[in-house]
Amino acid sequence: MSHVLDLACDLIRRRSVTPEDAGCLPLIGGRLESAGFRVEHLRYGEVDNLWAVHGTTGPTLIFLGHTDVVPSGPEASWRSPPFEPTIRDGRLYGRGAADMKGSVAAMVVALERFVAAHPHHRGRVGLLLTSDEEGPTNLDGVRKVVEHFRAFGERIDWCVVGEPSAKERLGDLVRVGRRGSLSGTLSVRGVQGHVAYPEKALNPIHAFAPALAELTAERWDEGNSDFPPTSFQVSNLNAGTGATNVIPGELEALINFRYCTASRSEDLRARAEAILHRHGLDFAIDWNLSGEPFLTPPGGVLRETVLAVCRELCGIDPEQSTGGGTSDGRFIAPMGVEVVEIGPVNATIHKVDECVAVEELEQLPQLYRAVCERLLIET
Amino acid sequence: MSHVLDLACDLIRRRSVTPEDAGCLPLIGGRLESAGFRVEHLRYGEVDNLWAVHGTTGPTLIFLGHTDVVPSGPEASWRSPPFEPTIRDGRLYGRGAADMKGSVAAMVVALERFVAAHPHHRGRVGLLLTSDEEGPTNLDGVRKVVEHFRAFGERIDWCVVGEPSAKERLGDLVRVGRRGSLSGTLSVRGVQGHVAYPEKALNPIHAFAPALAELTAERWDEGNSDFPPTSFQVSNLNAGTGATNVIPGELEALINFRYCTASRSEDLRARAEAILHRHGLDFAIDWNLSGEPFLTPPGGVLRETVLAVCRELCGIDPEQSTGGGTSDGRFIAPMGVEVVEIGPVNATIHKVDECVAVEELEQLPQLYRAVCERLLIET
Repeated sequence: MSHVLDLACDLIRRRSVTPEDAGCLPLIGGRLESAGFRVEHLRYGEVDNLWAVHGTTGPTLIFLGHTDVVPSGPEASWRSPPFEPTIRDGRLYGRGAADMKGSVAAMVVALERFVAAHPHHRGRVGLLLTSDEEGPTNLDGVRKVVEHFRAFGERIDWCVVGEPSAKERLGDLVRVGRRGSLSGTLSVRGVQGHVAYPEKALNPIHAFAPALAELTAERWDEGNSDFPPTSFQVSNLNAGTGATNVIPGELEALINFRYCTASRSEDLRARAEAILHRHGLDFAIDWNLSGEPFLTPPGGVLRETVLAVCRELCGIDPEQSTGGGTSDGRFIAPMGVEVVEIGPVNATIHKVDECVAVEELEQLPQLYRAVCERLLIET
Repeated sequence: MSHVLDLACDLIRRRSVTPEDAGCLPLIGGRLESAGFRVEHLRYGEVDNLWAVHGTTGPTLIFLGHTDVVPSGPEASWRSPPFEPTIRDGRLYGRGAADMKGSVAAMVVALERFVAAHPHHRGRVGLLLTSDEEGPTNLDGVRKVVEHFRAFGERIDWCVVGEPSAKERLGDLVRVGRRGSLSGTLSVRGVQGHVAYPEKALNPIHAFAPALAELTAERWDEGNSDFPPTSFQVSNLNAGTGATNVIPGELEALINFRYCTASRSEDLRARAEAILHRHGLDFAIDWNLSGEPFLTPPGGVLRETVLAVCRELCGIDPEQSTGGGTSDGRFIAPMGVEVVEIGPVNATIHKVDECVAVEELEQLPQLYRAVCERLLIET
């Protein structure tokens, strides 16, 4: 077994369902300490985070990942047990194989080899891992670490996120930004009553209907050269007591914007609220901005470096995308960091029989190491 | 204690929460049998129904009521226990006092006195009682009895429903019809997906929004001289998995028309479905017609008789209304029967501390008896 495969298996065996770390971070911290890294374990609430850095000054490149995984789902549905790493037909199966214990193992192996080969590289190279990426709130993971970094004046220039980005094979897609995510919990108040006496009630479903039609038809922006247009979705809509003869007194909706750099979150909020006001609704809305959009523009040092490495090692000119969900990159980017995401094929993530191709996994440490060398070795 | 008060108390003491009859109908059946009525106990499923008739041929007047009651709600909230009839300040308190054991007692006493005074009245006089009026489905009550009547060629001309109709005092409001009630359970199908990838999903909330706005804005008819316009209400609307990042795959809505004689139920169905089709929705709708509208037109023999009795006995010119919910009159009316509803004040029905004024209760047998006399005594 290769080193990266060995470490990936060791990590998959640990049932680190968010926020449990199940010993992943101490294992990695110990290895990097032996390799000469300074290691800090940052614990917030129930969450373990690890910060390891090598070098003392100058431009800083970090790798960012998470050791927590989503639940396995019904274990009986898996061909092999989700927490028993199994190789079949050239693939490593197990929960987290692709998202993202494979990438984490690759980062660790790449960093060990890089600092062994270049103990006096310029700048600094680091690894930041959390066990709170897959959970619902992400309150105590990278978000908190970044607060700590800001408080201590930590400076980072480049960040490679190892999230599974590839469509069909390693290197075919690189994420160069992510949309922002703005959520709202909307309550529309009416007056409850009997269905036979609508004149004595105010049905919040009826009151909301034209506003809902307008919100869902609105074009929020046209996108720009880097991003598709901002999208708006109502994910949940609930009103009614269950009884067929009662007009409900309240309606609740969960709404979400995935928005691009063509819009600002405060403008989207204001425009949504203006539509609700224009329809005369008695409403309250509780907004939650879970991530601002970020973009590493073309020509950025890290972006061009990662593209060059992909072309050379994988023989592909990668698609450069800002699509998909959010990642912990959203917390790092606002520090003024160039963020690029590259990792294995994401076809099986969060599913039963999650897997990663062994060949791809073994290529990944070379790719990460090559990024280190291009950025931190004077030529 | 008067006879009517005595019988009302006896009925209230029996915990006849739908579909339990708790012995109410045997008690009444026994009394009417002693008075010379032919009595049939019609049991369907868990439901007792009673049909008592006096006379053999000719025009038939029946009284219609129910002995079941809604649950008491928290007994501790009642000033006196809901199933212990209590007289305080000129009112009889107890579950069912107004809806409608008071009316049932008044009907029984009125019928006993009427046939005792007029053993050879013309036509027939009857009493139809069910213990399934307050339940959710009303499948085994008057609906089934009417099927039985139709099968046996039973003919009825006039029906007085004893539902509590009065606003402030007995005789101030007479119901001369009821709107129909047409319900639908609507499912709109979409395609579930991740909120960040709306292009791979089809949000049924978004798809439904413009149709919902159109349905709620539609004017279905203008009503007519007897009825207010048809009203449409969405009582329940639910979509969403609870997760904020998932676009739901399905939306469900419960809709209800309270419709007047200016519209036909099949036209309302067709118009609602046409709106849904016009918006290109993939939907299914399960319709339930729980009652056609009915109207006893001005000049009808029963309607004019009841109005005259109110004017004479109560000294009021009653409001003639078709408002409110449905009643078991909806099952009788389609047999070609004139239906009029008159009963005590409905202010406390279904509430804690339900009550009826003792004076009103004691007036009610005279009112029902006067209707019998005007219709069945040759003058």
